[in-house]
Amino acid sequence: MKVSRRTLLTGAAGVVALGKTAVASAQAPADSTKVRGKPSRALGQRAPTEKPQRNARGATSSGTPHQDLMGTITPSDLHFERHHGGVPDIDPKGYSLLVHGMVERPMVFTLADLKRFPAVSRVHFLECSGNFGGRTGSVELTPQVVAPLTSNSEWTGVALATIFREVGAKPQAKWFLAEGQDAALLTRSIPIAKAYDDALIAYGQNGEAIRPEQGYPARLFLPGWEGNSSVKWIRRIELSDRPFMTREETSKYTDPMADGTARMFSFLMDARSLITYPAYPVTLTRGWIEINGIAWSGSGKIKRVDISTDGGGTWAAAKLQEPVLSKAHTRFRHRWNWTGGEAVIMSRAVDETGYMQPTRSELIAMRGVSSVGYHYNPITAWQVRADGTVVFRAEEWT
Amino acid sequence: MKVSRRTLLTGAAGVVALGKTAVASAQAPADSTKVRGKPSRALGQRAPTEKPQRNARGATSSGTPHQDLMGTITPSDLHFERHHGGVPDIDPKGYSLLVHGMVERPMVFTLADLKRFPAVSRVHFLECSGNFGGRTGSVELTPQVVAPLTSNSEWTGVALATIFREVGAKPQAKWFLAEGQDAALLTRSIPIAKAYDDALIAYGQNGEAIRPEQGYPARLFLPGWEGNSSVKWIRRIELSDRPFMTREETSKYTDPMADGTARMFSFLMDARSLITYPAYPVTLTRGWIEINGIAWSGSGKIKRVDISTDGGGTWAAAKLQEPVLSKAHTRFRHRWNWTGGEAVIMSRAVDETGYMQPTRSELIAMRGVSSVGYHYNPITAWQVRADGTVVFRAEEWT
Repeated sequence: MKVSRRTLLTGAAGVVALGKTAVASAQAPADSTKVRGKPSRALGQRAPTEKPQRNARGATSSGTPHQDLMGTITPSDLHFERHHGGVPDIDPKGYSLLVHGMVERPMVFTLADLKRFPAVSRVHFLECSGNFGGRTGSVELTPQVVAPLTSNSEWTGVALATIFREVGAKPQAKWFLAEGQDAALLTRSIPIAKAYDDALIAYGQNGEAIRPEQGYPARLFLPGWEGNSSVKWIRRIELSDRPFMTREETSKYTDPMADGTARMFSFLMDARSLITYPAYPVTLTRGWIEINGIAWSGSGKIKRVDISTDGGGTWAAAKLQEPVLSKAHTRFRHRWNWTGGEAVIMSRAVDETGYMQPTRSELIAMRGVSSVGYHYNPITAWQVRADGTVVFRAEEWT
Repeated sequence: MKVSRRTLLTGAAGVVALGKTAVASAQAPADSTKVRGKPSRALGQRAPTEKPQRNARGATSSGTPHQDLMGTITPSDLHFERHHGGVPDIDPKGYSLLVHGMVERPMVFTLADLKRFPAVSRVHFLECSGNFGGRTGSVELTPQVVAPLTSNSEWTGVALATIFREVGAKPQAKWFLAEGQDAALLTRSIPIAKAYDDALIAYGQNGEAIRPEQGYPARLFLPGWEGNSSVKWIRRIELSDRPFMTREETSKYTDPMADGTARMFSFLMDARSLITYPAYPVTLTRGWIEINGIAWSGSGKIKRVDISTDGGGTWAAAKLQEPVLSKAHTRFRHRWNWTGGEAVIMSRAVDETGYMQPTRSELIAMRGVSSVGYHYNPITAWQVRADGTVVFRAEEWT
């Protein structure tokens, strides 16, 4: 640590004098030790000097301010949002979920019905497949602009497998349709195996009821899969022996490939990482700092995050915040002594399946140049300039 | 599960008809599928129908609405608060922490200095030693009234051990004084071993900056110890070879014992549990439900939570939400078929040291009748009446 960044007090007299000075300056404008503070209140608020906000991306999307966050939990009011028909206002008393199609017993469940089933809570990330924002040509981009559409919450709900057992899903049912109660009537076809793996009908987020933008009062939640498939405001599930080929899964949410064809039903979000500090608009001072950020994988746990401070020439394993959870943001940290001069810092996630986050050129080799779109998870770099300013390294990305 | 609690649809025609009816009723008053919803916004808000609130307990305290919560994370604006001089308004730019006394190098740290050190994030509960609210004689008490002053967050900060190494704590230092920058100038003496165990100077809570009531911009955090000792708005730490015998630790935060003496420095919060559902003011309907609640221990991980539905006659182990974390709220769940008739439901936590949450009479045998005060963690019971109403069982408590 750089001693020059803090005040070293010398001698007993100095301690008292400097200590008092420091305390006095900390008390400006009002001496908080001399006036009674605010009384208790029903709901806490942020300190007036703390103003994290989502960045609006048109009327249909806003992103998480990763540069303002620490740890792993995304505060619910900062969870990214993405919707195709606006955020509906749904009365929970009137809410119901219809489950029908290839089932023995078609049923309608109220919210109270859903809450009466055995519940599970798990921490998971949610990421939009279109989580890329770095193609403006600018280098003055924050982590929030580069990767706005991933967030991490403790989700609570009932296992979809429990619901499917209740209605008696038929053996020939291989897919199900999930339909939302929003103006887009968003519909997606999901392989039924996901229901028996880890899918939830979620009604809780970070300890409380899910927020309206996240699907209040209940949503489908498919851990590790592209956000769009976790249909919000879910009102209907229909079981079938084939996919439904809905508008959203034919006109959108397909990935162009190198040979000119498109792949469909590319649900899985592959491993990715993002350094959130240092990043634009930070200006560094010399000495030891802690590079840190988030890594996640739709395939399971993050096994390792490698850090490079020389543009990918050499790599060293970062420290992972415990516990490392499956399909969840994992905070990584790596001490680095910036001695001045230019540097390019990068992070590279490896998940428990062995998948390693690719470079942009590796991605293009796999999926072609038009792959710079959905499911775009290249290694992201930040450039530290000699004056300590940090900018986005656009050539690793566009 | 009780089939009568939801609508079983019979026959294909019925499916369509009832399905449409259900969907239609869910759309009242406006059809959310027909009107465009709200646009994105910088900060999310709760659904208008969700109104969890802390309960004011005078101007100096408010408690967490456990009956409204699920999972393990307490939303930051619902984290309990307790202060002796109100919530101070501290400018983070002027903030500093003085560390002096038996150290080689007395130093002052700004907030930026603290954030430059290697950081750690851990999920921990925080509980006030005076977390008991059931002594009103009333049986119409919610979990929020019975145990308002425990909450659970992901805390981020720098290990106090790191700070103590930086200043060169002397070997003869055995205690340290922690002083807050509030109007109460709250001061507590802490054994230095806690600094080298797991104490933090915390500046983050649930992914973002700590909230004002929780000590913004920085607080001491002593995992598993009584909340009062985790001094908020910390501005000064002084190392010494003995405790400082401050007002708060002599006039308060001591525990009367059976022999008329008082014990001091009783920091540890022993294992405790609380059923949060079903509880007053819930009215049950017959059939399977999931009893659930939270358990925690200042000594480490919760090993087991036992549930009784017959007033303590027989017990069965509940299911614990994974991952079970040390010194953190752990959600437990237990399926129960309420077939009607009176029942008394109880939970009993056992932690990894083997400590078992005591009954009230066991507590009194250990610490005398005047122990009904600080550090009061008896088994808590809820009575289910024959009509399904659930009330607090005060005789297990007062």
